[in-house]
Amino acid sequence: MFISFEGTEGVGKSTLIKRVHDHFLEKNKEIILTREPGGTALAEKVRNLLLQVDETETMCADTELLLIYAARSQHLNQVILPALKEGKVVLSDRFTDASFAYQVKGRGLSQQKLELLNETFVPKMPDITFWLDAPIEVGMSRARARGELDRFEKEKLSFFSKVREGYAYLYEKHPKRIYKIDATCSEAEVFQQVLDILNAF
Amino acid sequence: MFISFEGTEGVGKSTLIKRVHDHFLEKNKEIILTREPGGTALAEKVRNLLLQVDETETMCADTELLLIYAARSQHLNQVILPALKEGKVVLSDRFTDASFAYQVKGRGLSQQKLELLNETFVPKMPDITFWLDAPIEVGMSRARARGELDRFEKEKLSFFSKVREGYAYLYEKHPKRIYKIDATCSEAEVFQQVLDILNAF
Repeated sequence: MFISFEGTEGVGKSTLIKRVHDHFLEKNKEIILTREPGGTALAEKVRNLLLQVDETETMCADTELLLIYAARSQHLNQVILPALKEGKVVLSDRFTDASFAYQVKGRGLSQQKLELLNETFVPKMPDITFWLDAPIEVGMSRARARGELDRFEKEKLSFFSKVREGYAYLYEKHPKRIYKIDATCSEAEVFQQVLDILNAF
Repeated sequence: MFISFEGTEGVGKSTLIKRVHDHFLEKNKEIILTREPGGTALAEKVRNLLLQVDETETMCADTELLLIYAARSQHLNQVILPALKEGKVVLSDRFTDASFAYQVKGRGLSQQKLELLNETFVPKMPDITFWLDAPIEVGMSRARARGELDRFEKEKLSFFSKVREGYAYLYEKHPKRIYKIDATCSEAEVFQQVLDILNAF
């Protein structure tokens, strides 16, 4: 089973994923916890290029998209697909939905280019996706409290509103795969919502 | 005018490009000399990822292709297109033909994926391409003499034979754009062949 977790900054993805991971471990399930962009040593190097704040050179939108898919391709082929083949549960902090929400809806990059990369380089989509949703202001104040902001977190609130709209769009388009979770609830309640869905699944 | 230089390892690309560059400078032409993968600070970082020999993780073929196009996209949008717009001559050490020769013909990666990336992310092709051709053994012995081999140069001779066949294929397919230069000639003769073609053009 391949499960992805999505949402804007500070909605509590990391905490939730850790809890879900521990839950499966307690049940003696073989499970791996991974993240995007990243998930392998090489893909993490690509992630570093993506998150760096470089004052001397602007990263082009196409470059950003291609780097994300380079990291994703490595992550899929080296980590996710082999783990699924061995019957493991795979939890991924972000996957292709994030590219749609951030790059297409957030930055206004061509949806056609993204879909083309998905069709060509992503042979496997998550079985379930949990979209942790909360008003942007809530998430951003949590993200700021964590410390210095990376290149994505430095974007304006209006950017993150568009990203949230992107997730809402995907949620409507893929109702069987994507589950919306109210991330303004307590950590325990968020976890319980996810657990109920997983048990039903 | 956008001019690219192609060929397998050790055929004398760098020496030739330097000569062509100096020739244009002497004629008071505005000219830039660049290379792929690379050509911008960010693209050079991607190049480093591509050329690194990493014993712990195998780079997947798709990842390699996407990293090359990420670097190319940055190079095109930040360097090549702006320079051409300003009326400069652009000399590039490798461009898309290298991806076809090395990734598709050499590594056996899908030609369809490459063509799709070209159509989607490469809005401008070179006006002239010089393919420096020499028997593989000649080039490799020169490359070896230069010192330590990078990840590509460590490939077997059979790999480079396939790469050379790839260039031969492109040369037949694009006779108006690609000029074949006999790279077993002396440096001066190679330069003269190129100069004659440029003058005619």
